[in-house]
Amino acid sequence: MNINRRQFNHGLIVSLGALALHRSPSQSPIRVNGKRIVDHILALAEFGKNPQGVSRVAYSDADKQGREYVLGLMRAAKLDVTIDAAGNLIGRRAGSAAGLAPLLIGSHVDSVPEGGNYDGVVGSIGAIEVAQTLAENNVTTRHPLEVVIFQNEEGGLIGSRAMDGELTEKELDLVSRSGKTIREGIKFIGGDPAKLAEVRRRKGDIAAYLELHIEQGGILDSEKINIGVVEGIVGINWWDVTIEGFANHAGTTAMNNRQDALLAAAKFIETVNRVVTSMPGRQVGTVGRINALPGAPNVIPGKVVLSLELRDLDAAKINMLFEKIQGEAQKIAAESKTKFDFKEINVNIPAPTDSRIRSLISDAARDLGLTTKLMPSGAGHDAQDMARLGPVGMIFIPSVAGISHSPREFSHPTDIANGANVLLHTLLKLDQA
Amino acid sequence: MNINRRQFNHGLIVSLGALALHRSPSQSPIRVNGKRIVDHILALAEFGKNPQGVSRVAYSDADKQGREYVLGLMRAAKLDVTIDAAGNLIGRRAGSAAGLAPLLIGSHVDSVPEGGNYDGVVGSIGAIEVAQTLAENNVTTRHPLEVVIFQNEEGGLIGSRAMDGELTEKELDLVSRSGKTIREGIKFIGGDPAKLAEVRRRKGDIAAYLELHIEQGGILDSEKINIGVVEGIVGINWWDVTIEGFANHAGTTAMNNRQDALLAAAKFIETVNRVVTSMPGRQVGTVGRINALPGAPNVIPGKVVLSLELRDLDAAKINMLFEKIQGEAQKIAAESKTKFDFKEINVNIPAPTDSRIRSLISDAARDLGLTTKLMPSGAGHDAQDMARLGPVGMIFIPSVAGISHSPREFSHPTDIANGANVLLHTLLKLDQA
Repeated sequence: MNINRRQFNHGLIVSLGALALHRSPSQSPIRVNGKRIVDHILALAEFGKNPQGVSRVAYSDADKQGREYVLGLMRAAKLDVTIDAAGNLIGRRAGSAAGLAPLLIGSHVDSVPEGGNYDGVVGSIGAIEVAQTLAENNVTTRHPLEVVIFQNEEGGLIGSRAMDGELTEKELDLVSRSGKTIREGIKFIGGDPAKLAEVRRRKGDIAAYLELHIEQGGILDSEKINIGVVEGIVGINWWDVTIEGFANHAGTTAMNNRQDALLAAAKFIETVNRVVTSMPGRQVGTVGRINALPGAPNVIPGKVVLSLELRDLDAAKINMLFEKIQGEAQKIAAESKTKFDFKEINVNIPAPTDSRIRSLISDAARDLGLTTKLMPSGAGHDAQDMARLGPVGMIFIPSVAGISHSPREFSHPTDIANGANVLLHTLLKLDQA
Repeated sequence: MNINRRQFNHGLIVSLGALALHRSPSQSPIRVNGKRIVDHILALAEFGKNPQGVSRVAYSDADKQGREYVLGLMRAAKLDVTIDAAGNLIGRRAGSAAGLAPLLIGSHVDSVPEGGNYDGVVGSIGAIEVAQTLAENNVTTRHPLEVVIFQNEEGGLIGSRAMDGELTEKELDLVSRSGKTIREGIKFIGGDPAKLAEVRRRKGDIAAYLELHIEQGGILDSEKINIGVVEGIVGINWWDVTIEGFANHAGTTAMNNRQDALLAAAKFIETVNRVVTSMPGRQVGTVGRINALPGAPNVIPGKVVLSLELRDLDAAKINMLFEKIQGEAQKIAAESKTKFDFKEINVNIPAPTDSRIRSLISDAARDLGLTTKLMPSGAGHDAQDMARLGPVGMIFIPSVAGISHSPREFSHPTDIANGANVLLHTLLKLDQA
């Protein structure tokens, strides 16, 4: 299936991206090696292996070993690999045109605890495969190419936030899931936390960033669509909600004399669901954490602290939903003689992808005979940080049953190969654009 | 206020109980010393003192010291005091008639962590005061009298359950809130866990048991009634309810594609409240403990375990409520694509008080010019174990605002004195009956 670009293009690499998409009876267009991707994914899955899944949290021994394996793949793909001061793996490939900013492709290989083998891995191995395919086909892009394997995506997009200068000194001392502080973790994987300034890039330092990723939701799978063209990465607002009632004896306090913080919390959780689902759109709202005090079967809960998380592509919609939820909470408070307090914990503003890149992804997919759907990314990704530095695009492939962050996470080999081919051809189109 | 019984009754103690209640212009009927009770309550409150309240959990140093103080009060009240093998303090006073089983009065002086100064203490100090009043008035009852200060009421009615033979060998190895096992705790407070058989009593071994206690609810206080005549101690059924949904990514899983165990739990908590309050009666139902897994703001909870507690004087009503709640849970499960499982953890059957004693309490209160209300005890008490050995009665006094198991627990000195006087005169009536 290899093509020799020289047959088509004597020294003029410029037109190859377009040419590759036009099948000729005698020549197949350039394609990734789907079997090799799956082999590499399965080999990487051995590091931190769990029954069916993987625990390869950033800065663990398994993470370090997995990264070493990936570094070997990058070298085999003829990339010039370095570990930057933040601990990101960067594999460079020179471009043919002078003075162009690099095109970046990549993802991450760390996992959540008890995670799966596809989140981050598909995009990482896919990006390396693209580089290897280019090398094998003797294709040189105009722009320099960088394959970036960001470190500690799951623990707060640490590697990509170092790159856009968002990572603070204070954060370096936070303890990560590995037990190490982020500072210790960066040293552990070969970075140098004292030299983070060196990795920082500015707006315009990159020509574009492309990331292939599993959807982590069930839309593509249930609608039987091949490729998701990501509109943007949703904004995420997270509040801690404290509900104060009055703790009292569960046996002696009559039902009409209670200030039950957990009953008020129950009404609130239902309200969040009702408000979020009461209007069209793909917004989501979740109460994932709850703590009721004192927490004994025979004591009416006097205090509940719970998390509220809202996500949408549109920050204004998040605010509108929150105001509605807050208003409803005040009614619950009045009815149940409790008090609600909302404390904003974290805000990630929505990160739209680049419209031109979205079109190129759609074109590349169509050329490959694949169906597409425009969709938000409900999860955060390193791409949202790269969006501060230049135009970004994201390519989703189906997650079977929408399962993610679980050993049951799975994507079909065909979908993985499709995704990597779309990444390859979007990159080539972008290189020409 | 003391009366010299010899003026009324030359050797015939029999009629004193009745006589004492008939005021004569020159003689006051026998009364407790209300100021002394409050002084003793405040002195006892020094052991394990907290801001406004007390932490005197069983087998703690504070508990041991508090018991030593109480033992001194019992001796000062001319009681013949022993510590039984279970660690209960027993103060005996001989009766005048031969062959009668003893009349028991008492309560407990251990507290919950961060508790108040009245739960158990009012009944304990009140019972000792009754003995002292009898001694000071040279009143000898027909029946032998025993003032019993039960050990570790708050940690599972341990002292009273040793007395009726319900305490198991296995329980002795459970770790109590003090950090000591119950076995170690019994040794620590002067008992001998190897000789528990010695403390066991059988049905008929006691003539009756009377306990004075704070209501721990708000009914007497809000209705401005002096004395609660306890109909019985409610049955308590406790289940652990497990709700299985499916943990998934809170950003990527569409609202209509979730199996959110916490949303199902919220609907369940509301349902428990609705079912319990949907019919007349004084039944209570509480969800006091909840645990949602995995418990992260950005993960849809896949599993929730919560406690369900139902209490009523009528075991059949508890069963009926439970069946209704279970039926509603199945509907929630079907709607939310979750699974509910109910595991029975503990059942305390209802313990009715003796109807004759209830009448005597009402009579004694009326004679003292006090208003009464028939009511259940929503809380468990040592009296429920004594009900296995003979007839029991319980006298409630108002708890301000119904607050209990809290440093804010409070009962007015007048109410405490009223309660102790009702205890005294119920005892005297019972002694004659």
